[in-house]
Amino acid sequence: MASTKALAALDDKNEQQHWSVYSKTRSTINEQPLSHDELDKTTRYFHASLYLCLGMLYLKENPLLRDPLEKEHIKPRLLGHWGSDAGQSFTYIHFNRMVKKYDLDAFVVSGPGHGAPGLISNFYLEGVYSEVYPNKSEDVEGLQRFFKQFSFPGGIGSHMTPETPGSIHEGGELGYSLSHAFGAVFDHPQTIALTIVGDGESETGPLATSWHSNKFLNPITDGAVLPVLHLNGYKINNPTVLSRIGEDELIKLMEGYGWTPYVVAGHNLDEMHQAMAGTVEKCVQEILAYQKEARESGRVFRPKWPMIILRSPKGWTAPRKVEGHFLEGFWRAHQIPLTKVLSDDVQLQTLEKWMKSYEPDKLFGKEGKLVPELRALAPKKGKRMSENPITNGGSLTKPLKLEPFRNWAMEVKEPGVSSGLSMNNFAEFLKDIMAKNPTNFRLFGPDETESNKLSAVYEATKKVWVNGYLPEDEDGGNIAPEGRVMEILSEHTVEGWLEGYTLSGRHGLLNSYEPFIHIIDSMVNQHAKWLEKCAEVSWRQAVSSLNILLTSTVWRQGRRLTITDSSSDS
Amino acid sequence: MASTKALAALDDKNEQQHWSVYSKTRSTINEQPLSHDELDKTTRYFHASLYLCLGMLYLKENPLLRDPLEKEHIKPRLLGHWGSDAGQSFTYIHFNRMVKKYDLDAFVVSGPGHGAPGLISNFYLEGVYSEVYPNKSEDVEGLQRFFKQFSFPGGIGSHMTPETPGSIHEGGELGYSLSHAFGAVFDHPQTIALTIVGDGESETGPLATSWHSNKFLNPITDGAVLPVLHLNGYKINNPTVLSRIGEDELIKLMEGYGWTPYVVAGHNLDEMHQAMAGTVEKCVQEILAYQKEARESGRVFRPKWPMIILRSPKGWTAPRKVEGHFLEGFWRAHQIPLTKVLSDDVQLQTLEKWMKSYEPDKLFGKEGKLVPELRALAPKKGKRMSENPITNGGSLTKPLKLEPFRNWAMEVKEPGVSSGLSMNNFAEFLKDIMAKNPTNFRLFGPDETESNKLSAVYEATKKVWVNGYLPEDEDGGNIAPEGRVMEILSEHTVEGWLEGYTLSGRHGLLNSYEPFIHIIDSMVNQHAKWLEKCAEVSWRQAVSSLNILLTSTVWRQGRRLTITDSSSDS
Repeated sequence: MASTKALAALDDKNEQQHWSVYSKTRSTINEQPLSHDELDKTTRYFHASLYLCLGMLYLKENPLLRDPLEKEHIKPRLLGHWGSDAGQSFTYIHFNRMVKKYDLDAFVVSGPGHGAPGLISNFYLEGVYSEVYPNKSEDVEGLQRFFKQFSFPGGIGSHMTPETPGSIHEGGELGYSLSHAFGAVFDHPQTIALTIVGDGESETGPLATSWHSNKFLNPITDGAVLPVLHLNGYKINNPTVLSRIGEDELIKLMEGYGWTPYVVAGHNLDEMHQAMAGTVEKCVQEILAYQKEARESGRVFRPKWPMIILRSPKGWTAPRKVEGHFLEGFWRAHQIPLTKVLSDDVQLQTLEKWMKSYEPDKLFGKEGKLVPELRALAPKKGKRMSENPITNGGSLTKPLKLEPFRNWAMEVKEPGVSSGLSMNNFAEFLKDIMAKNPTNFRLFGPDETESNKLSAVYEATKKVWVNGYLPEDEDGGNIAPEGRVMEILSEHTVEGWLEGYTLSGRHGLLNSYEPFIHIIDSMVNQHAKWLEKCAEVSWRQAVSSLNILLTSTVWRQGRRLTITDSSSDS
Repeated sequence: MASTKALAALDDKNEQQHWSVYSKTRSTINEQPLSHDELDKTTRYFHASLYLCLGMLYLKENPLLRDPLEKEHIKPRLLGHWGSDAGQSFTYIHFNRMVKKYDLDAFVVSGPGHGAPGLISNFYLEGVYSEVYPNKSEDVEGLQRFFKQFSFPGGIGSHMTPETPGSIHEGGELGYSLSHAFGAVFDHPQTIALTIVGDGESETGPLATSWHSNKFLNPITDGAVLPVLHLNGYKINNPTVLSRIGEDELIKLMEGYGWTPYVVAGHNLDEMHQAMAGTVEKCVQEILAYQKEARESGRVFRPKWPMIILRSPKGWTAPRKVEGHFLEGFWRAHQIPLTKVLSDDVQLQTLEKWMKSYEPDKLFGKEGKLVPELRALAPKKGKRMSENPITNGGSLTKPLKLEPFRNWAMEVKEPGVSSGLSMNNFAEFLKDIMAKNPTNFRLFGPDETESNKLSAVYEATKKVWVNGYLPEDEDGGNIAPEGRVMEILSEHTVEGWLEGYTLSGRHGLLNSYEPFIHIIDSMVNQHAKWLEKCAEVSWRQAVSSLNILLTSTVWRQGRRLTITDSSSDS
């Protein structure tokens, strides 16, 4: 077969290591930080989360399987994603340990937001979900309602939608997890955004360039982002690019983006828990050390921030094969893992056996609540990631300090005689806003602030640049590490930063030319849909508006065939 | 000053080498392949091109400055870009040498298409422009018209617009140079696409992920792309990210993307010519060697293809400073380098002196044509990059071999009774098309061919995958190095590939869900505008249509808050 022949050639020529997660566990950090007792509890907590994931996907009745599983207990239409749930839950649980140990202020951004059960299950286990939605209580009845509502008519979506506490990022349209996370930690110096990046998402353009956000983060006045690139190996029906390149290439790619990558790879639970525990702790220690160094010295520098490459099987802990076909560790685990439970008794039994293998009776007490010794693994009230007020940013929003805009009115003595420059005038107003709101407002744009005649703002603050400098920059470069105007030639990145900045309770404005703003049509639509739904969720506080200032007009670019205006020309 | 203090910290902490191009010339390849005579001629040819660039930007009369320069000779409104012209021209001229020496079939894609003079000047020097537009003849009169028409009412745009022979990529909306180039060389095994990637463009999301196109290129049946990442250091008003990271990071980034980077950096003309000549030749030799190896053995593998990192000053060969401010090597060189020539006699004299420094009298003969000894540097007729028929792809388009679509009609015996699956049925038609057109049609999509129920096509051909393989892939993976279905989770990349594939004379279809297709709204608009203008250019042959098959509907994603259809859910 031609493909097999070629396959051999691929192996041979590239000397690629094809990192099957079923090889032995590998980790950059080789420590065993968890005691036997901690290891056991971590596994059980993980199992509790995975049990809840399957419950959300399948059950509308009989939530703890205290009765034999019958078809009547199963939802009539099965919709949801299992593939990335385990890896996301695994990551979240290990970061919980850090939140407790280092008293962190943290929250999570889920790039693969369609794998919502992996995180929603955790938000329920730590109690936040029931506090927000009292009828999804921590008992058998509440659990039944919690399961049934998931991806069910009248219930919640299968993504990290606005109804989900702890979320500012749905993860529907892929590519914006890192830019949202960075946006949320700018001017939040105490905050760490644990950011799970899917390996499907990592193929998108917006995500691919957003790794460079680290060149715009000030370690003194901003928080930190800890990306976890979750390589579970597959998209809907395809392997992912980054999971199949040689690991030498992958490491270089992340180092090239300016990060320090740490690998955790495997499937054996005990070994993976130890590897992840040690790795997450190493990363947190590095983040805190870099921040301490910058803040004590008062010197801005660009650390090679840590990030984690997590290789775990897609659909981890599912049966490896079902009916002769790969399930765990293959793309078939992407959505509903067993699709025929309603029509096939054997599959129904397989599901029951699988769910019971997590031993729900030992995880949940008689009344249906997570047993106290496991609950103790979650951070204490007030510190749980899913209740971080950043994820309900409207609760943090402070009004902008604004002078009356009429102060910048242009005098019109008689009609048709006065003249003035609207953008230059507006720039003076904007300069005043930036000066009066030094931690609550930022100006964003792809590289057009100057050509849009807004350069008066540089009298209040420069463009942020935490990257190399040259002597020429003193000649009107207007860049500085502590600047608050944010420009990178990626409309996706600046829009993602602005969205993250406003969703976490601040204000901003993006300026761009109308001819090119269509590049982010789709992003703006997604944001508008998020806001629209938020308005229907009673506990969500309104965030500030998404301000976009457009100059020039789209038709200019469409007809740039004769003469064009240099102010609208890149 | 805080920024200076922080600047020092940046230097100190990151141990970055801030690659000022004014340091000494550096090159990965240290050879001196050019004889003294070749070096001299190459410089003069380069000077001829640069002279033409300035002529296009400034002059409407007196094209060879045989009269003293007067304001009346200058265009009344100055529009155009000087910044990247020299680097692009430099690259093109050095690749010409390779086209001649190795008898290559090549063409150029200009990412910074707004720096069009750098290439249009070359197309004129090698004679193609005058052959296509006889009134832009190779004499003083033709040259005057050639200059005047540039970015002038009734003339041509300041980008690589459809009127420009040799172009399939305008470079207006940035980010698509590499995906277009790859699209054009798929199934064109003899062709090399010299692709200039701007360092502004390199910050866009679409470009950042399109480097991964090398995992989808078959070295036996496809051609090759030689990317030249042109770091001139600045965008409109900002330094670029990639020009200011440490070179260790930049090298790793490119290696991480799967390329073998070669650096050429500096500003000294003689040294840079030697460095670039040696480097381009090394790259061409590697490309040809990889192709030979794959083709002689019949074994597909993924070479670590060569690419070039070219660091040259923005606005190279302009005055370094004007009126006390940096021009060459700074962002002020982005557009018109001397902006006040119409109102400032000193600037007018500076321009005249600068243009005369290229010694036009020695470059162009009495009648105004490039002197024969320089013209001999260009490839011979039939091999010049700007006349490659790929860049007028309609001239290569062959009709698809299609059976009558009614052969797949579904029988309707009586109204309201028959039922069938439209997509599954269409898939059979598509399978037939793919089987009958094995080098003239490809199917593209972000990862939805299977969920869009088109998997019948896999009986004709698999998904192309020139990346690592695992044993699981045999279990319905449907991937193969010689596949012709193209999937990567980047709508931008697959759309760019499809555009490049059709613009270079072939056929294709992109399938995706309507909810996410808005991601490429803007790209599709740009393509439509390109086609619209092509229809007005008499020598452009029509290319095949851009076929996009959309499934599901946009409203489903917008309302994915209750229940969603798994077939439309990623």
